[in-house]
Amino acid sequence: MKLKIKDMNMETGGPLVAMLNVKDALLMDLHSGDRIKIQQGKKLETVLLNITSSKSIPKNTLGLFEEVFKTAKFKPGSKVKITPTRKPLSIEFIRKKLEGHRLSREEIHQIVWDIVNNKLDSTELAFFVAAAYARSLGRQETIWLTQEMTSHGDILKINKYPIMDKHCVGGVAGNRTTMIVVPIIAAAGLTIPKTSSRSITSPAGTADTMEVLANVCLDLKQVKKTIKKTKGVIIWGGALNLAPADDKIIHVEKTLSIDAKSQLLASIIAKKASVSATHLLIDIPCGPGSKIPTTKKANILKKDFIEITRHLGMKTQVVLTDGTQPIGHGIGPALEAKDVLYVLLNDKKAPNDLKKKSIMLAGKMLEMAKVTKNGQKMARELIDSGEAYKKMIEIIKAQGALITNPEKIKVGKFTFDQKATKSGKITSISNDAISKIARVAGAPRDKGAGIYLYHHKNDKVKRNDIIYTIYAERKHLLKFAKEIAKAEHGISIK
Amino acid sequence: MKLKIKDMNMETGGPLVAMLNVKDALLMDLHSGDRIKIQQGKKLETVLLNITSSKSIPKNTLGLFEEVFKTAKFKPGSKVKITPTRKPLSIEFIRKKLEGHRLSREEIHQIVWDIVNNKLDSTELAFFVAAAYARSLGRQETIWLTQEMTSHGDILKINKYPIMDKHCVGGVAGNRTTMIVVPIIAAAGLTIPKTSSRSITSPAGTADTMEVLANVCLDLKQVKKTIKKTKGVIIWGGALNLAPADDKIIHVEKTLSIDAKSQLLASIIAKKASVSATHLLIDIPCGPGSKIPTTKKANILKKDFIEITRHLGMKTQVVLTDGTQPIGHGIGPALEAKDVLYVLLNDKKAPNDLKKKSIMLAGKMLEMAKVTKNGQKMARELIDSGEAYKKMIEIIKAQGALITNPEKIKVGKFTFDQKATKSGKITSISNDAISKIARVAGAPRDKGAGIYLYHHKNDKVKRNDIIYTIYAERKHLLKFAKEIAKAEHGISIK
Repeated sequence: MKLKIKDMNMETGGPLVAMLNVKDALLMDLHSGDRIKIQQGKKLETVLLNITSSKSIPKNTLGLFEEVFKTAKFKPGSKVKITPTRKPLSIEFIRKKLEGHRLSREEIHQIVWDIVNNKLDSTELAFFVAAAYARSLGRQETIWLTQEMTSHGDILKINKYPIMDKHCVGGVAGNRTTMIVVPIIAAAGLTIPKTSSRSITSPAGTADTMEVLANVCLDLKQVKKTIKKTKGVIIWGGALNLAPADDKIIHVEKTLSIDAKSQLLASIIAKKASVSATHLLIDIPCGPGSKIPTTKKANILKKDFIEITRHLGMKTQVVLTDGTQPIGHGIGPALEAKDVLYVLLNDKKAPNDLKKKSIMLAGKMLEMAKVTKNGQKMARELIDSGEAYKKMIEIIKAQGALITNPEKIKVGKFTFDQKATKSGKITSISNDAISKIARVAGAPRDKGAGIYLYHHKNDKVKRNDIIYTIYAERKHLLKFAKEIAKAEHGISIK
Repeated sequence: MKLKIKDMNMETGGPLVAMLNVKDALLMDLHSGDRIKIQQGKKLETVLLNITSSKSIPKNTLGLFEEVFKTAKFKPGSKVKITPTRKPLSIEFIRKKLEGHRLSREEIHQIVWDIVNNKLDSTELAFFVAAAYARSLGRQETIWLTQEMTSHGDILKINKYPIMDKHCVGGVAGNRTTMIVVPIIAAAGLTIPKTSSRSITSPAGTADTMEVLANVCLDLKQVKKTIKKTKGVIIWGGALNLAPADDKIIHVEKTLSIDAKSQLLASIIAKKASVSATHLLIDIPCGPGSKIPTTKKANILKKDFIEITRHLGMKTQVVLTDGTQPIGHGIGPALEAKDVLYVLLNDKKAPNDLKKKSIMLAGKMLEMAKVTKNGQKMARELIDSGEAYKKMIEIIKAQGALITNPEKIKVGKFTFDQKATKSGKITSISNDAISKIARVAGAPRDKGAGIYLYHHKNDKVKRNDIIYTIYAERKHLLKFAKEIAKAEHGISIK
């Protein structure tokens, strides 16, 4: 059947979809969710079909969403031929996993190929995520998934050895060690092409915070060029096409707020393999109030990381750190960026916990790369000598500088001081509550919004001492944040 | 934020969805897949949000799909207020099931409520289907699901006892017993409000075949009125709002061609409970080449049916029948309708196998209802006496008559005779191959399309004897069907 192309002027957000009138669909015995092949000379694309009785799709018309125009370049108004076609091969393999069977490398290859090429709709992708979650992937399946995710995307190739990388499992507010570790490692002469994410549910991701100081959206060519000059970068991974299947899977996982462990492992490690990392340090913050509540769970995850990365030829070390409270003073992009620069400048305003943790992590990496036997000492010296700060300025300028002086970083002008409700010792500071207040205040969208923490666990405080200050760029958001803090300020004193 | 309503002039096919410009979304910190509450005076609706950068949704505009206009009656062009809101409660319960926990009645209630009220998108529904499939529902969960599916829909209340019903698990081409059983049962004075489905993947559903003879789209009021007169109806269940959650679940299951057994049971039984059935006969065709390949599997299913319906207060009998080959001569709506009327007329053109099976099933039901101790004898007599045919005419006329004489049923004018490729005994006739050829020839869309089978298993044939004739209403479809038959005609001779 020949149909006239209509531009729906709309995106689906991923899947390749076409719309057909219900009368044409009846004639051709087509149903919503069927696959069709669209042909026009040598142009060819397979898409999912949606049937509508709406006037917006008259008879003999095929409505196409933007994603299809991007892949197949059909012209609106031109005629195309459509024929029904089979479902993607991976549907069969997803069902197999849902039934509890193991998948082969070829089957995983096909699933990842279909995900990356937008051949699966969100329902089908949900079935895959559900299958991997309810049935879980074995070690070998996870390794294959990692490899397939990596190879179905761009790869940053740098002719150096070692290539250092780090990852933090997350969940701790203000934990901005990457921006301190990278300049230390690069200042020691090692290569570290660090990609980071933006926040999804936290007050800031490393990419959000780095963006206060520098441009973080570099393409693959720019990354290569910059690395040659500076040895280190701190950029947003989302601007590159590294392991793109991962982003599509995460999008579906968000629906149910689930993290299928095997997929999580594959996703993280694929991103590292995509920058050709040879040495990897993983930080697992654990303890009550963190993502990984027990040491037992942290140790299982540790073992998984080590085993899987070993199969991929990476040298990996995993450290378990304290995840029970926020780290540093600032929470939110601008406030965190200030903390980072103060640490690198060895300023007295620098938060001690953030400095100590960053030196510990950098030290481990220096020892892994065998440039010293006392990593912590070397890391501290690189800060004390100003080498790390100098390297950070170099990186900021190479990526596209915005700010290098912490005093020039603007924070929100609307503030509220949260005071101690009684005198005593702080027994806990909730990551979740602090993150929520910072987000409601506007972080990470408003870079200057967030929280400045004056105290940490075990500090003794008097009634009416300021525990933290909320910063907002917009008055009504400060009001909202205050209301949230009133209901649950996140601080326990005994 | 106040937004102007725009009519997208399009359906989503279920979920309540609104579209927002990416700039507005950034301002409000909203993401695709978030829920928002739309308010306008007393009008209120919760919908799923889609974010777009398309020109079709300018700033300060909220695009709504048709389903939202149906439930909440907002006027295009008017202003509404939107506020972010939580995900439906059932998301939490779906995740719980995906993790392998048991659900409570309240949790199942909430899931079904959210499904029926279009609060879940297809991804979330897919997670539920996947959870029930990978983790499977226990007996008690299945009973609750059945009850909740039933109560979240219309219920046909008839002040009679018993109320008879039957169900066939399907998979056998031409197995149109319902249209013979219903008039027999009604002729015996029993009430049988039979709802049937249309075909999804077969050459005809009972509703498709009955539609050759009569109108099958009755609303609840019309069904009640008709039943009073005739005691029996044979109608399309889809025209009524019985257990509507089922149809939404089936739609998602089709994606992966999976039948979660517990959901299948709940779906079937909920439809029966919705017509207030008290006595239920279930036909499970089994054997190689059928939906249920082994007697062992059939017996497990049998036990499930009996246990669950017992909890719902129904008296149920289950019969295992031969599902290894098509039944009757005709396959496709018109050809099947002819078979049915020939059986009821006791005509010599009547297919013996269809007659025998229908009498057996009707006989069991008559015995269940305790109107006789020899059901088969009574059923045969009701046919022989013409009472059953008379009742069928009465039903056809009450529903809205089209045809009552089998000779007046038109079949496709384009035909092709499939001949025996050698002499010998027919050892198998494939349901799947015969169904596929009939569908490609145009069934069930073209009522006159299908297959007329002259032979069954164990018949001796000579080379070039006609085994079956393909009928089509359109020449090019006959050509396609011939091509399919050439590749796989479905008949084995030895």
